[in-house]
Amino acid sequence: MTAYEIIAKKRDGLELTDDEIHFMVNGYTEGTIPDYQMASWLMAVFFRSLNVRETKALTNTVLHSGEIIDLSKINGIKVDKHSTGGVGDKVSIILAPIVAAAGVPLPMITGRGLGHTGGTLDKLQSIPGFKIDYSVNEFVNKIIIHDTCLIGQTATITPSDKKLYALRDVTATIESIPLITASIMSKKIAEGIDALVLDVKTGKGAFMKNYETAVTLAKNLIGTGDLFGKRTVAYITNMDQPLGNTVGNWLEIIECRDALLGKGPADLMELTYQLSGTMIFLGKKAMSIESGIKKAKELIANGKAWEKFMEIVTSQQGNTRFLENPDLYAKPKFAVDINALQDGYISELNALVIGSTTVTLGAGRLKKPDIIDPKAGIILHKKYGYTVSQGEKIMTFYTDKESIIPEAESRLQNAIKYSEIQPQEYKLILNYLDKNDL
Amino acid sequence: MTAYEIIAKKRDGLELTDDEIHFMVNGYTEGTIPDYQMASWLMAVFFRSLNVRETKALTNTVLHSGEIIDLSKINGIKVDKHSTGGVGDKVSIILAPIVAAAGVPLPMITGRGLGHTGGTLDKLQSIPGFKIDYSVNEFVNKIIIHDTCLIGQTATITPSDKKLYALRDVTATIESIPLITASIMSKKIAEGIDALVLDVKTGKGAFMKNYETAVTLAKNLIGTGDLFGKRTVAYITNMDQPLGNTVGNWLEIIECRDALLGKGPADLMELTYQLSGTMIFLGKKAMSIESGIKKAKELIANGKAWEKFMEIVTSQQGNTRFLENPDLYAKPKFAVDINALQDGYISELNALVIGSTTVTLGAGRLKKPDIIDPKAGIILHKKYGYTVSQGEKIMTFYTDKESIIPEAESRLQNAIKYSEIQPQEYKLILNYLDKNDL
Repeated sequence: MTAYEIIAKKRDGLELTDDEIHFMVNGYTEGTIPDYQMASWLMAVFFRSLNVRETKALTNTVLHSGEIIDLSKINGIKVDKHSTGGVGDKVSIILAPIVAAAGVPLPMITGRGLGHTGGTLDKLQSIPGFKIDYSVNEFVNKIIIHDTCLIGQTATITPSDKKLYALRDVTATIESIPLITASIMSKKIAEGIDALVLDVKTGKGAFMKNYETAVTLAKNLIGTGDLFGKRTVAYITNMDQPLGNTVGNWLEIIECRDALLGKGPADLMELTYQLSGTMIFLGKKAMSIESGIKKAKELIANGKAWEKFMEIVTSQQGNTRFLENPDLYAKPKFAVDINALQDGYISELNALVIGSTTVTLGAGRLKKPDIIDPKAGIILHKKYGYTVSQGEKIMTFYTDKESIIPEAESRLQNAIKYSEIQPQEYKLILNYLDKNDL
Repeated sequence: MTAYEIIAKKRDGLELTDDEIHFMVNGYTEGTIPDYQMASWLMAVFFRSLNVRETKALTNTVLHSGEIIDLSKINGIKVDKHSTGGVGDKVSIILAPIVAAAGVPLPMITGRGLGHTGGTLDKLQSIPGFKIDYSVNEFVNKIIIHDTCLIGQTATITPSDKKLYALRDVTATIESIPLITASIMSKKIAEGIDALVLDVKTGKGAFMKNYETAVTLAKNLIGTGDLFGKRTVAYITNMDQPLGNTVGNWLEIIECRDALLGKGPADLMELTYQLSGTMIFLGKKAMSIESGIKKAKELIANGKAWEKFMEIVTSQQGNTRFLENPDLYAKPKFAVDINALQDGYISELNALVIGSTTVTLGAGRLKKPDIIDPKAGIILHKKYGYTVSQGEKIMTFYTDKESIIPEAESRLQNAIKYSEIQPQEYKLILNYLDKNDL
């Protein structure tokens, strides 16, 4: 068995054996197969894809390249949620305290912003002092005590995925359904979960622009989860416009705070309740998704979710003072309004443009070593379907970087489209899929 | 412009600009674009191909990555021949003295064996003392004096091709028509030729197993040659069975000697005359291909081609004593006959199996640093369409490696198929193509 033969076999559209996939991925991880051979294999996989069995084998190899967390000493069904990435998507930060408050253990290993999308980890780190690098032991112990803990990727979990992802990122092989599937599922299974709720985003600001592709990915994720005995369900949700009214790390944390205090915007709460309700149901703390949603709403209304959030922040060494009184937080140097150029309905607020502009404001990384400015970001005063009059404020953006203001203004103006007639309703939750849909 | 964008563009089936191809190939040659990005681009090209303009741009970039030989001080039309590689294909060594003796200047930069195929360079080097590493200056001067010189690839010519070829060889991206076209044509144009005759092989022992693929490659080569103002014509020839009666370096040199002395086997001479006649015609030393062929036959019959061969060998420091008296050459330790297992017609002598078995005998390289045994090889006593009786000798193989004899015997037996009825005629020259066929 040689890397050359395995590349040629996949290139020619043939099915690889489990051993061949294992040989390729382990060889690459261990350094016996060079990156250029892996790069050509990944591109062959991009074109020829992997079938269900091959995807399982890849997931399994990546999963076993590192530590698999043992959560068996924690009672209950361990449930996590994964989003494929969006703009203004701060759902995890609201959902984790809700689900934990419902008594469902929630091990959450989360990521940084990628491209134009934000990352839960970057958002959490805008809370002064919030610590995200706990050992696996500390992670497990915190879940035992608080029912959840939110940390970043550790070096010990799925090292193959880290190496593969870094290579895919520079060889234009990210956008492959089986490669995405193996990357997501290996990491989630390594967390020691029993069940998983997926938020597969589609639309202008999502990585899957196309609805059908999002459904295909969701089915692949569900099928792979099932093969590993993990109950997996998926929502396909709309990412044409940003979720909620804020984009940018600390701005989003304030929005999470408001949401947990019962003052979240409608679209953000709709998705948060749906996902957390589903997790409470999968965690067997509700008889149905509907009753899970009801429970989630109660936990917001009675303040239990907010209490749990403060408990989590305290446990992870975050300074709760800034959450109790956000005015204490440092202020950005510049605030610039984006005003309506005409009367009419807003018929587009392009999430991709808004997301990538937010990165240039300082809220994300253009290059890996860039330092994030937690204050930078955008507040959306109006959203899709709202009416505006010429000159009315649609967004305000915040930055410390004066030089980029003119370009940001022009880009954000270009993110907005107007219509004289009322545009069709913005449907946020497009579909629900589980094993029965395969 | 980034390598990532160029990879993604080709991956998505879009046309690349000349600048993008130049950026990619030059960046790789100079080391600013890493091999893993080039590997994924090559695999994307494998799947999406390059159109005529892109292929020209690639050829041009590779051509200008190194020295282009200036043959302008040599009178006459400079013609070369290129074969895509076969088993027992020693035509260049017979053809070069014929064409040179006809007064057509023939700059010949030739290659080593690749996979199961033999290389002209390896064959020439089985002549004791024969030197193949002359400087470009010496090369040109020898062509001025002798009308030809046969050398190996120099470091100064198309360095991009060397780097790209080495990468393609380990990433399963050899078999791409535009990549093959750019590789062949850049090297041939860099020789300073005016016209080119191609022998595009198809069949079991060729890299292009399929006739249609061979025609496509031939058309790509002709079209690209034409775009550079080089008159290019192509023959599609059959490589189902080895060409001539010998496979292996020194055995093939003896067969060339016999051929030049007027005692060559029919199939070898048919192709040699066709190709050399065409070159004499393109070099304007004959009014038609037919009269070129007539001239080639005369030059064999009157001994002028043999004289020219001895002149070339002497000029390139080869020891002519072994050509005058082959019995002086070292003898292989083992000679093993392969006898017919049944009565009948030979309906297959699989060139791929025979070629790769010859490599294991010592006639080629399994790994790059392997040293070739010039004595190792096979003599074919019977060929396709011949009748044999059970026990009659079909081949004899020669090697110094006792341990591989049983496996070689079994492999060579498997290369032979028998038929009770006379198989259809073996057509060697399948087609002729030139610019008018595009």
